[in-house]
Amino acid sequence: MIYNFRNDYSEGAHPKIIQALTDSNLEQHDGYGEDKYSLAAAGKIRKELDCPQAEIHFVSGGTQANLLCVSSFLKPYESVIAAQTAHIEVHEAGAIEFTGHKINTYLGVNGKLSPKQIQDAVNFHYDEHMVVPRLVFLSNCTELGTVYTKTEFTDISDICKQNNLLLYIDGARLGTAIVSKSNDLTLSDIAKLADAFYIGGTKNGALIGEAVVITNPELKPYFRYNMKQKGALLAKGRIIGVQFNELFQNGLYYELATHANNMAMKLASGIDAAGYTFFAPPESNQIFPIFPEKLIEKLFKKFEFYIWSKYDKNNSVARLVCSWATKEEAVEAFLKSL
Amino acid sequence: MIYNFRNDYSEGAHPKIIQALTDSNLEQHDGYGEDKYSLAAAGKIRKELDCPQAEIHFVSGGTQANLLCVSSFLKPYESVIAAQTAHIEVHEAGAIEFTGHKINTYLGVNGKLSPKQIQDAVNFHYDEHMVVPRLVFLSNCTELGTVYTKTEFTDISDICKQNNLLLYIDGARLGTAIVSKSNDLTLSDIAKLADAFYIGGTKNGALIGEAVVITNPELKPYFRYNMKQKGALLAKGRIIGVQFNELFQNGLYYELATHANNMAMKLASGIDAAGYTFFAPPESNQIFPIFPEKLIEKLFKKFEFYIWSKYDKNNSVARLVCSWATKEEAVEAFLKSL
Amino acid sequence: MIYNFRNDYSEGAHPKIIQALTDSNLEQHDGYGEDKYSLAAAGKIRKELDCPQAEIHFVSGGTQANLLCVSSFLKPYESVIAAQTAHIEVHEAGAIEFTGHKINTYLGVNGKLSPKQIQDAVNFHYDEHMVVPRLVFLSNCTELGTVYTKTEFTDISDICKQNNLLLYIDGARLGTAIVSKSNDLTLSDIAKLADAFYIGGTKNGALIGEAVVITNPELKPYFRYNMKQKGALLAKGRIIGVQFNELFQNGLYYELATHANNMAMKLASGIDAAGYTFFAPPESNQIFPIFPEKLIEKLFKKFEFYIWSKYDKNNSVARLVCSWATKEEAVEAFLKSL
Amino acid sequence: MIYNFRNDYSEGAHPKIIQALTDSNLEQHDGYGEDKYSLAAAGKIRKELDCPQAEIHFVSGGTQANLLCVSSFLKPYESVIAAQTAHIEVHEAGAIEFTGHKINTYLGVNGKLSPKQIQDAVNFHYDEHMVVPRLVFLSNCTELGTVYTKTEFTDISDICKQNNLLLYIDGARLGTAIVSKSNDLTLSDIAKLADAFYIGGTKNGALIGEAVVITNPELKPYFRYNMKQKGALLAKGRIIGVQFNELFQNGLYYELATHANNMAMKLASGIDAAGYTFFAPPESNQIFPIFPEKLIEKLFKKFEFYIWSKYDKNNSVARLVCSWATKEEAVEAFLKSL
Repeated sequence: MIYNFRNDYSEGAHPKIIQALTDSNLEQHDGYGEDKYSLAAAGKIRKELDCPQAEIHFVSGGTQANLLCVSSFLKPYESVIAAQTAHIEVHEAGAIEFTGHKINTYLGVNGKLSPKQIQDAVNFHYDEHMVVPRLVFLSNCTELGTVYTKTEFTDISDICKQNNLLLYIDGARLGTAIVSKSNDLTLSDIAKLADAFYIGGTKNGALIGEAVVITNPELKPYFRYNMKQKGALLAKGRIIGVQFNELFQNGLYYELATHANNMAMKLASGIDAAGYTFFAPPESNQIFPIFPEKLIEKLFKKFEFYIWSKYDKNNSVARLVCSWATKEEAVEAFLKSL
Repeated sequence: MIYNFRNDYSEGAHPKIIQALTDSNLEQHDGYGEDKYSLAAAGKIRKELDCPQAEIHFVSGGTQANLLCVSSFLKPYESVIAAQTAHIEVHEAGAIEFTGHKINTYLGVNGKLSPKQIQDAVNFHYDEHMVVPRLVFLSNCTELGTVYTKTEFTDISDICKQNNLLLYIDGARLGTAIVSKSNDLTLSDIAKLADAFYIGGTKNGALIGEAVVITNPELKPYFRYNMKQKGALLAKGRIIGVQFNELFQNGLYYELATHANNMAMKLASGIDAAGYTFFAPPESNQIFPIFPEKLIEKLFKKFEFYIWSKYDKNNSVARLVCSWATKEEAVEAFLKSL
Repeated sequence: MIYNFRNDYSEGAHPKIIQALTDSNLEQHDGYGEDKYSLAAAGKIRKELDCPQAEIHFVSGGTQANLLCVSSFLKPYESVIAAQTAHIEVHEAGAIEFTGHKINTYLGVNGKLSPKQIQDAVNFHYDEHMVVPRLVFLSNCTELGTVYTKTEFTDISDICKQNNLLLYIDGARLGTAIVSKSNDLTLSDIAKLADAFYIGGTKNGALIGEAVVITNPELKPYFRYNMKQKGALLAKGRIIGVQFNELFQNGLYYELATHANNMAMKLASGIDAAGYTFFAPPESNQIFPIFPEKLIEKLFKKFEFYIWSKYDKNNSVARLVCSWATKEEAVEAFLKSL
Repeated sequence: MIYNFRNDYSEGAHPKIIQALTDSNLEQHDGYGEDKYSLAAAGKIRKELDCPQAEIHFVSGGTQANLLCVSSFLKPYESVIAAQTAHIEVHEAGAIEFTGHKINTYLGVNGKLSPKQIQDAVNFHYDEHMVVPRLVFLSNCTELGTVYTKTEFTDISDICKQNNLLLYIDGARLGTAIVSKSNDLTLSDIAKLADAFYIGGTKNGALIGEAVVITNPELKPYFRYNMKQKGALLAKGRIIGVQFNELFQNGLYYELATHANNMAMKLASGIDAAGYTFFAPPESNQIFPIFPEKLIEKLFKKFEFYIWSKYDKNNSVARLVCSWATKEEAVEAFLKSL
């Protein structure tokens, strides 16, 4: 049997979440996210963010969250600033453009945008023949598994405020960013520094669901209308509410992310010890070792993982992803196979 | 405690579905609907449709299915023909228009479009100053709980074929349509007569999910690209696959819909016996009795339901909805309160 | 030779306009509407409107003006209220929907919306499953050649203000509305009562061009960005500026519209005298007599005009349009042919 | 007085065009481009292209032509491949994205895309998480005034055919490309090698207008519906027909472009003789000399031109544009001022 390090959504949900869904299953609740679980989950998240005024909405996936927020927040001629590796730029099949908005991209370092690039984007666009950059899109963790430090994040937030830009974070893997050993940001810091973001559930132990958080009061009105219009308002909205209510109870969200990171760090240490290097510094549950093609061929007999890119003639960049469900034996088996 | 006849999505999922999710939970599977459950479910649906070439895709909700199909199937200048009461016209917050397409509406009888109205729509539009009607949108059950007979459905399919129109069915409540006593259509008939449709899960016992069925081969290519672009491709696609695999095993889908209809018919008989009339003939799990305001006020103390519209000075049209989970005692209690 | 009463854009421009284009032709001017003629024309229009703060933009056609304004002014979930006969509903090939917005239509009387219909539209839409009506679209003249009285227009403006609705006027034939004998509105009244509108040039003696007027300050920012994005910002913007500068000099705009109306009224009187009735009261340069099919057949040998609709078994509604260029002899010849 | 080398649309139209508009002015013609001048102009263009089956449509500007073609030709998930300097990428305010399509950009050399970049774009996109590149967008002349040679153009056409890509040319300045001394392509070659393109009028002596040419039969159906929907179908369509009828009579189109190029080459020779270099090789009516800031400051006292970009600490890239109307004395005066 082949073990899967391909992604962090190969299994279903953490058993506590399945249990919570089972326990609440036969209760009657209002639809469309107005049930008591969704309300309770939103309350817990607001508390975790230390941001009582945050508005929380639950949606089914990350692309949904991204296209919904961008199209809700921007006017037709406004654009998004993002890294060339950004998920919305490369891996969402043109979802942002379908809603009518351009993405202005800049080459990131380790998947990160810099304040200077953001300022350059603003400066480059100066008249009505051009779009108006209006929203900075970051992922944290980035697409390369790295995390923004509090300094980096604050600098970006500052440059945004100076230029009337909105700051939005794709938090598909926000859990593993927050518990990363390279991290010094809290969810509360993000709530203070960003205008909106989403806290990923699907990739951190939920069956399905992401929690969109809007802190900027100007972005709140009529958001549910936009959700409905994009097919993001679920009739049985409770099913995401129940899950986030569980995730933000007794620290489950952090616990699951910590396991994912621990397994990835164990993999990274072993790979490093075996003499291989990394395409980007291993900081969270996704790591990007550079492996010889021959080794990859051999590993593929027992493990599934994704080839990120060709590195040079004889080597490729692999992507190994751990999750809340990754088994330590599988990690050890992988390291033995090197 | 107040019992809810407001809709058919107040509870979670049928216990067998929760069980199936639990049983498969820790297995590792491919993402994005390429897991064995999604494949198996698609196979069972194809068999049920007696349509081996049908393409099946699982999405999270009905608005998502509708906007996805319409925007995938139509060219920019092509429009949709629908009843004025159609869900896409009234209750999807402009989702179809957001994808760029006009809806041409016609006043239905009992929520149904007629072949003549479809032909009128085609005839009315004749040059490049006007849109080109290209897709007929029906709901079955309709928004008024009525069902299309095989003759009605075939006549519409014929008029579509004669005019190069696509026929698409919103099947949010297709289960209760098929098992309705007024019905003589099978899923297989629909697969033969329509170009695409969806089989609703959310409103017939699933936790979440609808199965989009495409039978017209011209509409199949690149559909998954459109899904991704609209945020409809779920990372843990398995969770819908597991549910539909269960629903289409041993007739569970029909069994759940039959219970919903039986409860609604019991309600309808009692209401009729009590001397009230209906806004549309009761044929499925949604019924629309006309009640005096005073009675409604009294009923609201024990039951929740939706007021569809004002009927006249002293009466309103109520909407009562039953589901797989509706309790017979609740129905009886309701009838006693009349 | 066949004379054309089909429309008011069969000829080129009034000779004074051709002359103005010729006179300014070899001068060098800034592009994109920032030339001295465009600025002067805007100034004259502002004076005519008695509205110094109005923003004026010149675009190439009416559909362009309508789609540009609607898509600039509305948020994604906001919709337009219009008559079922409205140009944007029937004769712009889905232009408004392509920009993402729904049109909510109501059956007008003589092509006009009533304040009650507008209030009904607002009342009908009340939650996030529905669009939010936000802009009332009127045409003046209407599609049936009728004109709004000052009372009618003021009542509509009031109902808009009470409901936070924008009021927008399609003024493709605003000239003939203003000089209509049934009219008691001035351009200045419209500027006070509406949020935005356009003053049609193409159908009142210009070669090409319409003047979009924005009086509501909230709608002004970044409008030129929207123009550029929709392909509405002309490199040689001067060519529309030169024309409107001429049209709003020495009352040419009114003079041309008056001729068009006079010719239409002469036609209407003669048709009335000949015993025929009208589908809508003749009030401007478009009139809609009801003619027997046999008469139409005979008239078509010498005149071109448009059949608006079937009236009954033996009669149809014709549309006869006069313009600044209509020859009195042609009108007389038409009346003789009845 | 300051002379303007800022662009090629500072003046109105060539006097012969004004004359043609004047001569035809009072004739009655059908609207919407179905008049005899538009038909005759289309015939002349087809003959010039040696392509009897080409479909010709006249629109008001280049952004209009580009957004219209891209949105008509592509399915929602399909994207455009373009140079990073492309007009649609930088200078059309997000027009393409507003119609729902992504642009995949590649760094060009002298404003040109290479076949390898096109192949790279195709190879990079391989599954439904990504867009499908489908249309290659070239400008000829490019944004840097360079022209594609027949070999370059044929190689690109070949790579397009091999990859099922459409080839579309923005020909805002196609006239000066064709008559460039660096050019060996004919309009007929372009008609054979590209699927669609437009022949620019506004920047080559017309008052307004571009001629869209569609040679690929699959792209022709319903194009006028798309035109109407985007506000591109002009009521008095004749006014562009009359102009192109004149431009393609007795070689006027080439004559005007030749004058523009001659003036630019005279400028370029003088600038070269004065010891300055160029940012891109001067090949058509736009040239890009690198000038010291101090010189620029001095020149600005007598001449207007555009600063394209900073070159280094003390130098900037200027853009000088000549047109059919550029006066030789102005060129000479400019060279004297160096």
